[in-house]
Amino acid sequence: MISQEFKEMTKAPSVIRALSVYATERGKEIGYENVFDYSLGNPSVPVPRELTDAMIELLQTKSSSYLHGYSPNPGNPEARQATADYLREKYGLPYTMEHIFMTSGAAGAIAHAVRCVTKPGDEVLTFAPYFPEYNPYINKSGAVLKIVPADTSSFQINFDKFEEMLNPNVHAVLINTPNNPSGIVYSTETIKKLASVLEKKQEEYGHEIFILSDEPYREIIFDGVDAPYVSKYYANTLSCYSYSKSLSIPGERLGYVAVNPAAKDADVIVAMCCQISRGTGHNCPASLPQLAVSRCMGKTSDLSVYETNMNIIYDELVKLGFEVVKPGGTFYIFPKALEEDSIAFCEKAKKYDLILVPSDSFGVKGYFRMAYCIDTEKVERSLVALRKFVKEEYGR
Amino acid sequence: MISQEFKEMTKAPSVIRALSVYATERGKEIGYENVFDYSLGNPSVPVPRELTDAMIELLQTKSSSYLHGYSPNPGNPEARQATADYLREKYGLPYTMEHIFMTSGAAGAIAHAVRCVTKPGDEVLTFAPYFPEYNPYINKSGAVLKIVPADTSSFQINFDKFEEMLNPNVHAVLINTPNNPSGIVYSTETIKKLASVLEKKQEEYGHEIFILSDEPYREIIFDGVDAPYVSKYYANTLSCYSYSKSLSIPGERLGYVAVNPAAKDADVIVAMCCQISRGTGHNCPASLPQLAVSRCMGKTSDLSVYETNMNIIYDELVKLGFEVVKPGGTFYIFPKALEEDSIAFCEKAKKYDLILVPSDSFGVKGYFRMAYCIDTEKVERSLVALRKFVKEEYGR
Repeated sequence: MISQEFKEMTKAPSVIRALSVYATERGKEIGYENVFDYSLGNPSVPVPRELTDAMIELLQTKSSSYLHGYSPNPGNPEARQATADYLREKYGLPYTMEHIFMTSGAAGAIAHAVRCVTKPGDEVLTFAPYFPEYNPYINKSGAVLKIVPADTSSFQINFDKFEEMLNPNVHAVLINTPNNPSGIVYSTETIKKLASVLEKKQEEYGHEIFILSDEPYREIIFDGVDAPYVSKYYANTLSCYSYSKSLSIPGERLGYVAVNPAAKDADVIVAMCCQISRGTGHNCPASLPQLAVSRCMGKTSDLSVYETNMNIIYDELVKLGFEVVKPGGTFYIFPKALEEDSIAFCEKAKKYDLILVPSDSFGVKGYFRMAYCIDTEKVERSLVALRKFVKEEYGR
Repeated sequence: MISQEFKEMTKAPSVIRALSVYATERGKEIGYENVFDYSLGNPSVPVPRELTDAMIELLQTKSSSYLHGYSPNPGNPEARQATADYLREKYGLPYTMEHIFMTSGAAGAIAHAVRCVTKPGDEVLTFAPYFPEYNPYINKSGAVLKIVPADTSSFQINFDKFEEMLNPNVHAVLINTPNNPSGIVYSTETIKKLASVLEKKQEEYGHEIFILSDEPYREIIFDGVDAPYVSKYYANTLSCYSYSKSLSIPGERLGYVAVNPAAKDADVIVAMCCQISRGTGHNCPASLPQLAVSRCMGKTSDLSVYETNMNIIYDELVKLGFEVVKPGGTFYIFPKALEEDSIAFCEKAKKYDLILVPSDSFGVKGYFRMAYCIDTEKVERSLVALRKFVKEEYGR
């Protein structure tokens, strides 16, 4: 008999996915170029030429078994070594390949990391606004995700609420900086304070509290923004990374868990990840992308378009009187809606072919997300629609 | 605090993996060409030229977002369509793309399939000898794997034991034909009898019992062997396929679940798989391999070497007096050891640089597995070592 639990889940599709489907359908009517689709975080800039060249050269020169044979459980050794070398050099922490576990994107990384450091029933805290897929990622592992309310003045951490919610059953804290959906980057001050609170609580509770640091936007940082590397400030950190955004390869499903060498049990966590894979059925990301990426360490797509887009949108939103915190990275912005009910707000925007995502599923009411990973030319054209929308619906 | 459960698991490494590591180490001493390494099921023949050409052409001609953008949750639509067309034409069942869910190999396929049709605590039966990874694949889903003892005379199904073990808590039966480790292909008679038993029990218990049909060796069938397609004989079948063996791309982690269109709830199972992925963190296999494989449907590597190797080994084993059932497919053979303790037998074989896998972890005592996916030239040289081993250790 089929699982009633998963059957029920099929009836509640993702809000973001539904909006994206709507945008595609609407595009068939009026031309997709006329739909200002800010729904999906799908990178718009091409992969770097070096990556394509590396793939072609590998295919033209290397043997079939080298290219397409089984990777060892923790991932291709070249990819692990290249990743460790890169992180060590860039952040000054003594990573070796033994600290790197290759995964199917950040989703795979979080799936492994949470199972490493919690047991069923343990609490994991995360901070609103947050990526709604954290719910299945954490809750289906057996741990329980709890949401710390947002500090909407800055979208940094709401420490008062956080300290209220900390208790001995909390074994991990999941953070995402640069943040989806707010676009905010946690400051060094924020990370230091977080580390200090957790260190105190570790002592008090007599057990580790790991930070699961979800970092797919780590390389998308805007001019002059303070963007600390979390592991530098807190020993018990597992960095969950994805190449999806920095190299524009979300479809290749490639990322990793990087275990802070200073973490408790750092020497056994990768081996544990290998065991976890056996139960979730995902045994390594694909080999060709691993090999190609390991030849392109430190390269990124041309990410500058995201900052260009952000500035255009931010300036216009401010001009139109929106309350909005200026993003420090990513390709998201998270303004306050012009009415309390952000679902109604985004529904009205559809009339102007503006596809905006209401904030409710991100754990905050009254805001909306725009994913501006689209062509700048289209962003510019969308401003006309935005002005019209705001004027006609809200008289501004 | 790290998970004690997964930490404990790291202390019990796979027997096969340990033998493979031994073979590699021994190779450093005497040259790997002199180690007769029958431990791992890693395909030895190159990928078909068409697949490499397809990948290169895709990389040279298609856009970055087409090649490397997010796939929809159930997989790339071209790959799903090509798979459905291929299966429909080849096996005459009315598959459409709505019945196809792309996965990270057969491991990913089984991980999804079992969660679709069981709930925690439900029993899944499989037949010895069986692939030992079925234990974590099934048990970590929350279902409970139980092993039906082998029919060692034929390595078809032991129906007496099977019927004894069937009970209302059994919700799925996991089969693997052609079989790892025996190399045996279940006959049409076996599959028909299995279907008939299950149909009766479905009626009796008042719920479905799904067959999870693990089929990575489906295309490796030897001359004249009867190899039925399971879904043709039983409606509630989920075929779990991998391209690892037929295309020699185990590292690319590509496979699928094909839901028999006649199965109960066939229209919702793929959507359920999409929900399951959110919890296990594996959200789709990589996109480039999906695109390339969808252009090479029905193509395979040159699989004939496996039959050549099988015949050489089988003939020699028979000549040396081994009890052995002749394989009908795969690249495995599963002879009876020359002493009761097959672990001791395989340990002695190591002295002759013959790397054989004892049968205990496959759920049968007293046998051993040889994975003959190695060069024929090496197979021939290994016979000298095999004769010497048998003569010196067992006086034959």
